[in-house]
Amino acid sequence: MKTVSENTCFGGTQGVYSHDSTAAGTEMTFGLFLPEEAKDGPVPILWYLSGLTCTHENAMTKAGAQAWAAEQGIAICFPDTSPRGEGVANDEAYDLGQGAGFYVNATQNPWAPHFNMWDYVADELPALLGENFNIDMDRQGITGHSMGGHGALTLAMNLPGRYRSVSAFSPIANPTQSDWGRKQLSAYLGDDETSWAKHDASLLMADAGFDGPVLIDQGADDQFLDLLKPEALAQAMAAKRQDGIFRMQKGYDHSYFFVASFMEDHINFHAEALWA
Amino acid sequence: MKTVSENTCFGGTQGVYSHDSTAAGTEMTFGLFLPEEAKDGPVPILWYLSGLTCTHENAMTKAGAQAWAAEQGIAICFPDTSPRGEGVANDEAYDLGQGAGFYVNATQNPWAPHFNMWDYVADELPALLGENFNIDMDRQGITGHSMGGHGALTLAMNLPGRYRSVSAFSPIANPTQSDWGRKQLSAYLGDDETSWAKHDASLLMADAGFDGPVLIDQGADDQFLDLLKPEALAQAMAAKRQDGIFRMQKGYDHSYFFVASFMEDHINFHAEALWA
Repeated sequence: MKTVSENTCFGGTQGVYSHDSTAAGTEMTFGLFLPEEAKDGPVPILWYLSGLTCTHENAMTKAGAQAWAAEQGIAICFPDTSPRGEGVANDEAYDLGQGAGFYVNATQNPWAPHFNMWDYVADELPALLGENFNIDMDRQGITGHSMGGHGALTLAMNLPGRYRSVSAFSPIANPTQSDWGRKQLSAYLGDDETSWAKHDASLLMADAGFDGPVLIDQGADDQFLDLLKPEALAQAMAAKRQDGIFRMQKGYDHSYFFVASFMEDHINFHAEALWA
Repeated sequence: MKTVSENTCFGGTQGVYSHDSTAAGTEMTFGLFLPEEAKDGPVPILWYLSGLTCTHENAMTKAGAQAWAAEQGIAICFPDTSPRGEGVANDEAYDLGQGAGFYVNATQNPWAPHFNMWDYVADELPALLGENFNIDMDRQGITGHSMGGHGALTLAMNLPGRYRSVSAFSPIANPTQSDWGRKQLSAYLGDDETSWAKHDASLLMADAGFDGPVLIDQGADDQFLDLLKPEALAQAMAAKRQDGIFRMQKGYDHSYFFVASFMEDHINFHAEALWA
């Protein structure tokens, strides 16, 4: 593991690190905020998964998350959204290939050799962090924005017991029924739609739900509402009697100005579960 | 004036606007955060001047300022750091020309036709905001980072009565004695150093000081300490018995992770003066 940069931030450290990833078969970069408390002992961790076109850097610089994580004494990890670099397949579209891993393990070529973001986020990166940093891997929460909200929700519901809490900002909520989903799931997983179901938050919610609290924020003026399909998730949460809150936020769009506006709420929500 | 973008943010609006500037002789772009309270009546304003290489966008997206401005009910304006575009002089160096206006009115060619950032920030932009937005121009404070901290301090001390409070993050504190200063003041103002004095915060502090409270934050691990010369300003503040606080922050560097870490303190400091 290599240290790309470390900056003191809100009394803790905002680091950027790179490493040779087995899951991705290439070098991967991630951001990690450690609060001051990590100098003395293990701290809980919140995963923040980013959206289409993002890298590890977007949320790390634009979401204002460190202020609240420092206050709560929890770490935040910002993984990249896909493998990158020469030899890694790509597509000209912004929503497929590099920057658009969709948090799945690809089974189809040309994606299969590198696009294993599910394994990377669920297994490889947690193991790496547990070995190298003062993090309590028994206290994990997960959140994300847009494609990353999809990733957070699908990981959380597929891995019961792993995360104590899950939240999302404007998640891609029903990808099997959206152009943000059908195209990518078809490309990465093939045309057999039965393999898609475990990557659709609304289907997972209707099925098993999540064994902990859920918080969803969605901007009412989001320019991508037709692609995100929040109504499918809201319906499934209510029908499942899921312990959770779904908030439609008047006036807000899909930008990081929206994410930053509600970051304090999300981090406090996770902190309550993580410190319980 | 044209609206480039508007995003709902912490209950208010983060806007970006452009306009044909008389002072700059070209189109200029600025960011403006208006808190929710501006819908009902005029609100105080804090100016945030950015550093070398920055545009109106850096602090607007990376400083986390809106959270605290919303809480205090004050606007923040993020001007650009220089004129830009075709026909505007430039230099290959990052620290001269576009992105490096140094908040002066250039008297020397090729800079004189467009590089009048002093007039732009002190006069033209306040007048434009006063006409177009719900802002109380009797309640202004000013802050900035690095070159922008230099701008904030020199504007504040040269225009007594204009700003109720001034603060700075790692300002270029003594430019007449620094390579971040001598090169630019010489290029923009010519070699007669008497014309430089009103653009040196430490000299101004030693002379008249500021007629209100001052807050300075400086990272102790700033990679540019030799260029910033904070010791000159700290000495001048103490010698002048200036109402003010100078804080050397252990472990922090020159980045926006430093700025964000202390933004709450700065906005609360200004809010106290602005609402008094």
